[in-house]
Amino acid sequence: MSLQNFFNPRSIAIIGASADRNKVGYALMANLVAGKKNGRKRDIYPVSISEKEILGLKAYPSVRDIPDKIDLAVIAVRADIVPAILKECGEKKIDSAIIISAGFREIGKEGIKLEDKVIHVAEENGIAILGPNCLGIIDTVTDLNASFGARKPRRGKIAFLSQSGALGTSILDLSIKEGVGFSKFVSLGNEASLTEMEFLKYLADDDDTDAILIYLEKLSKGREFMHLAAEITRKKPIVVLKAGRSTRGAAAVMSHTGSLAPDNSIFSADLKQSGVVAVESIREFFDMAKLFQLGITQPLSKFVILTNGGGPSVVAADLVDLSKSLSLVKLSAATQNALRKVLPPMAAVGNPVDIIGDALSARYKAALDILVADKHTDGIILILTPQMMTEVEATAKLVSEYRSKMPIIPVFLGGPTIEGGLAYLHSKDMTNFDFPVDAIEALDGLALGAKKHDVQKVPTKLPAKSSAGRASKMMEFEMMKKLLGDYGVSLSGILVKGRVGLADAITKSGKGPFALKAISADIVHKTDKGAVQLNLKDLKDIETAWDKIMSKNPDAKLEGMLLQPMVSGKEVIIGMKEDLAFGPTILFGLGGIFTEALKDTSLRIAPISKATALEMIGEIKGIDILRGLRGEKGVDLGALADLLVKISKLSMDHPEVREIDLNPVMATENGVVVVDARVI
Amino acid sequence: MSLQNFFNPRSIAIIGASADRNKVGYALMANLVAGKKNGRKRDIYPVSISEKEILGLKAYPSVRDIPDKIDLAVIAVRADIVPAILKECGEKKIDSAIIISAGFREIGKEGIKLEDKVIHVAEENGIAILGPNCLGIIDTVTDLNASFGARKPRRGKIAFLSQSGALGTSILDLSIKEGVGFSKFVSLGNEASLTEMEFLKYLADDDDTDAILIYLEKLSKGREFMHLAAEITRKKPIVVLKAGRSTRGAAAVMSHTGSLAPDNSIFSADLKQSGVVAVESIREFFDMAKLFQLGITQPLSKFVILTNGGGPSVVAADLVDLSKSLSLVKLSAATQNALRKVLPPMAAVGNPVDIIGDALSARYKAALDILVADKHTDGIILILTPQMMTEVEATAKLVSEYRSKMPIIPVFLGGPTIEGGLAYLHSKDMTNFDFPVDAIEALDGLALGAKKHDVQKVPTKLPAKSSAGRASKMMEFEMMKKLLGDYGVSLSGILVKGRVGLADAITKSGKGPFALKAISADIVHKTDKGAVQLNLKDLKDIETAWDKIMSKNPDAKLEGMLLQPMVSGKEVIIGMKEDLAFGPTILFGLGGIFTEALKDTSLRIAPISKATALEMIGEIKGIDILRGLRGEKGVDLGALADLLVKISKLSMDHPEVREIDLNPVMATENGVVVVDARVI
Repeated sequence: MSLQNFFNPRSIAIIGASADRNKVGYALMANLVAGKKNGRKRDIYPVSISEKEILGLKAYPSVRDIPDKIDLAVIAVRADIVPAILKECGEKKIDSAIIISAGFREIGKEGIKLEDKVIHVAEENGIAILGPNCLGIIDTVTDLNASFGARKPRRGKIAFLSQSGALGTSILDLSIKEGVGFSKFVSLGNEASLTEMEFLKYLADDDDTDAILIYLEKLSKGREFMHLAAEITRKKPIVVLKAGRSTRGAAAVMSHTGSLAPDNSIFSADLKQSGVVAVESIREFFDMAKLFQLGITQPLSKFVILTNGGGPSVVAADLVDLSKSLSLVKLSAATQNALRKVLPPMAAVGNPVDIIGDALSARYKAALDILVADKHTDGIILILTPQMMTEVEATAKLVSEYRSKMPIIPVFLGGPTIEGGLAYLHSKDMTNFDFPVDAIEALDGLALGAKKHDVQKVPTKLPAKSSAGRASKMMEFEMMKKLLGDYGVSLSGILVKGRVGLADAITKSGKGPFALKAISADIVHKTDKGAVQLNLKDLKDIETAWDKIMSKNPDAKLEGMLLQPMVSGKEVIIGMKEDLAFGPTILFGLGGIFTEALKDTSLRIAPISKATALEMIGEIKGIDILRGLRGEKGVDLGALADLLVKISKLSMDHPEVREIDLNPVMATENGVVVVDARVI
Repeated sequence: MSLQNFFNPRSIAIIGASADRNKVGYALMANLVAGKKNGRKRDIYPVSISEKEILGLKAYPSVRDIPDKIDLAVIAVRADIVPAILKECGEKKIDSAIIISAGFREIGKEGIKLEDKVIHVAEENGIAILGPNCLGIIDTVTDLNASFGARKPRRGKIAFLSQSGALGTSILDLSIKEGVGFSKFVSLGNEASLTEMEFLKYLADDDDTDAILIYLEKLSKGREFMHLAAEITRKKPIVVLKAGRSTRGAAAVMSHTGSLAPDNSIFSADLKQSGVVAVESIREFFDMAKLFQLGITQPLSKFVILTNGGGPSVVAADLVDLSKSLSLVKLSAATQNALRKVLPPMAAVGNPVDIIGDALSARYKAALDILVADKHTDGIILILTPQMMTEVEATAKLVSEYRSKMPIIPVFLGGPTIEGGLAYLHSKDMTNFDFPVDAIEALDGLALGAKKHDVQKVPTKLPAKSSAGRASKMMEFEMMKKLLGDYGVSLSGILVKGRVGLADAITKSGKGPFALKAISADIVHKTDKGAVQLNLKDLKDIETAWDKIMSKNPDAKLEGMLLQPMVSGKEVIIGMKEDLAFGPTILFGLGGIFTEALKDTSLRIAPISKATALEMIGEIKGIDILRGLRGEKGVDLGALADLLVKISKLSMDHPEVREIDLNPVMATENGVVVVDARVI
């Protein structure tokens, strides 16, 4: 569906409009009427049962009485009459409505009932709804302010979707102070009908939007979100502030929206795979917006720090050098010489380039002329400290003039003394970072998000919906072996049904030593039950082991015992688990002690490509163990990645499989051997 | 020595005073004269060879011509005449001088020569010097501004020492905007004579100072700093912003000060052991100042979040819940019920306490009345979002009124709409955090710093000065065994000088299997040289092993071979290394693959107590391996800690020992066995 009527309606009815300045119904009217003045013509129709005229406009007792066709209804009435109002909108053939009113899902049982009724009436009448319980919508391009916020943000190229009204208000207010502009702001409210998904789809092709910020507490369509986000981030960056990552945070989400926050580790995998920049604080969120305000929407990685202040530039150099994906350019001898010629002898011409405390703006200019020509540099972090001679505004002017030649990230560091410079930057649609760390973390976040962008085309629909009802059962060994085999995953060893079969099995297995394991649905933790015997050299050893296992597990119903040649290699684990929102997820980790003591694992949502599989393996902290320490040969990472991809494929094809556990898998120089497996 | 004349001089000579508003010599005069107006009487004497009168004060051609006794000289003349000027100060019996002038050590060779001359003249004349190349000193209590900064900071309880003038200027300027006040500011400059040490000593007993901030690029007296800081942090917090932590950062320090940044891992250990809060960005540095401005100088850990905005409080709850040392209070049923009675039904009375968007200040008050009475709560993080009804200033008033009952950390989140609230907070000597994360990271930093506070009384002098000249030599086995033995560290096994001695050694050693290792200064990496043979069962095995080792190392000069019963346990490593600035440092790590792949080690400066040793062990990421996984018994951590303490003691007693390497040490349930050792 088109959201055109939400962002650029020709005619609007405000139902619950008011002449009382303390009422939301007044604030809405005032904001909408103000928009009409500056932008294109737009007809505003107040609907009120008590007033005859509001802000000079004739008020109608009902939306049905308005003589014109209405593109958008903005509803700000008592919650309990919203369904009746919506019905009237239906009769008036209105197809788009913003429900500002609160008192629905967020207040519990009664509210859920009411919200269900709203959804029902809306569906019956074909009305798309934003809200309820939201602030409304702002579009700075069409000059529409259908919100009750006190201040309109400045025009910009960033779209901002928020599942929290309070967060929306705060960020918009702050953006005015910091010179950050938005193309669109959407307060998503309870998402009774329209969700972040529809708005994201709209924003994907919106030429007025270069970057998207989303505050997310809930995510109902995990897999579809991932797919859509992956597509959008090929064109423009998405930043997500995830809330409810912790136990207490998730409880708070539940209490104030009645929704379940998504599992954090899986949600993180989602964002990673989609190339989304995930942030964890409002500061980081806003700092990403600042980066976009400066026109930086593509990752940059190699920087020069240009400054008049030694200390701050050292701190900044530390942060860049220790960041995950940024680095300081090594300036060429030619560049350094050129700098030396125009700078005083005390200046530092390495990187940071420190033009020292008495620098006037002319010295900044001289350095910039040389630095913007450097082909190895992606951007300049310009740190200004307010010294006695510093020309703050003139330097701000330089920043705005030179940024067409190379991205320049201003960090004017101070208080009252730098205010004129900030005002100048804002006047040129630029902004300033308060501290070097803010800029550097934002740049690092953007580069990291982009680096992780490696998504396969995934089916947008979820693999057959889950699982909550079904009984879970461990798959029998032969069946499991067959299933894994179909995907090219072979399980080491031979299943021996009875003790007499051992001799034959040894002959088939080749060289020992061997391990012998009981295969039984009754024995889950084999080692704990003495159901695994290792280092068996010959038939005699193996028969003794058989008897030992039997005696320790007298009551277990056996499928048989598995005879495996022992393999030495590096132990890893590979797992698959079905998530309710995202479907199959794939886990990789170092085995044994590493998994247990360090939780050294990585996770992705299936299906995964080989590239993603290799990325997962590379994320492990103990990766050097697999790559080979002290000249030791590394294991075959390609074979490991192939195995991950096979398990991913299996899990996509077989929705009935809810869990796979290959543990351990022995990785060697020449390949991988699956030593033990479990499928549910 | 007393620094009284630096902070509260009765009479001051400004040498290089000027009537030209663009000159430092004018700014100094103006700042000093302004101080005289408001504070106690203070005599200001300009010294100038070109002016007769500056700012209405008679100027003297030389300091010697001033008829009064001078407590403090402030020198702002050309670098090359500073020695001559200092000599005149000596003749005038001035004992304290601030050298503002630049052009010394920081410009290289010539400057170093000049600075050495300054030091010489100062010592000869008994003059204590701050600088050169500094901004000067500000004392807000005595109303002294002996700096050329444009703006005087507000009065407060924080002292701020900076090795960077530019950082000082920026922070002071910012502090005015943010309502943060200082008791003293000292720009340390090149530290030709006075260093951070003397000022720290002074601040330790300064009643006007509740907390200390230091920006550090260099640290000449590592061990003394540690000792002093440990003493001070028992009384008041110290925050250190370390610069030069990275390769590029350290290079930048070298280039702009000519000094070597301290080794980062050792410096970090230093700060940890001294209970110093170490921060890595200017933002964190300043946010710690904000915490102190709010009067919070002692660690708090259990918080309530009180808010009118759902989204921001969820983000804050996540950050507290996932922080290292903070937690959200679980409010009692009684408290929740009390809240329910005074709050609307839609409010959330868990923690976060969300009094929702339409809250007037009265609702904040009602909630605060209940929350400040909760005995399980250390502090309240009050997050305000600017909604339509929000009473920003009245809420700010509440914060200032209630903070005597319980620490309240205000986070007013917005732009123009919250400005009145911020102004109110500033007027009450309070400040505001821009985002929840800023407050939470600062609180976490303070709590962590305090938690790590575990320092032994250490000798302030360095253990016998190092090592650069001496040749390094590996200690012979028998000597090493004796030395370790003196400290109760016994090395496993028997040294067998010749092959014939093996039988006897086996008898003495008890049960096998055994390991046999060559002991030779020629064989450093035993395993690589085939000089270790394992799993030897009997004499025959061992003799074969002997021959094998000999044949692989035909040219090595042997002390003998070490016969050891093989021990199974968890492999750890313990090391000691001498640092040039700090003396002996002690290292602990998980052995083998963990050390190599994960660099999973912790470090402290010797001597260490058993408590510190246990803390070191606990810092290891793989600590669960030592504590015991899956019901497995843990190793004897006490015995490990004892071993660390023994090595620490040895290293303090024997300055000639430069390196000790116990690798591996096998830790078992019942104790520790040192399997291999190396001493240099």
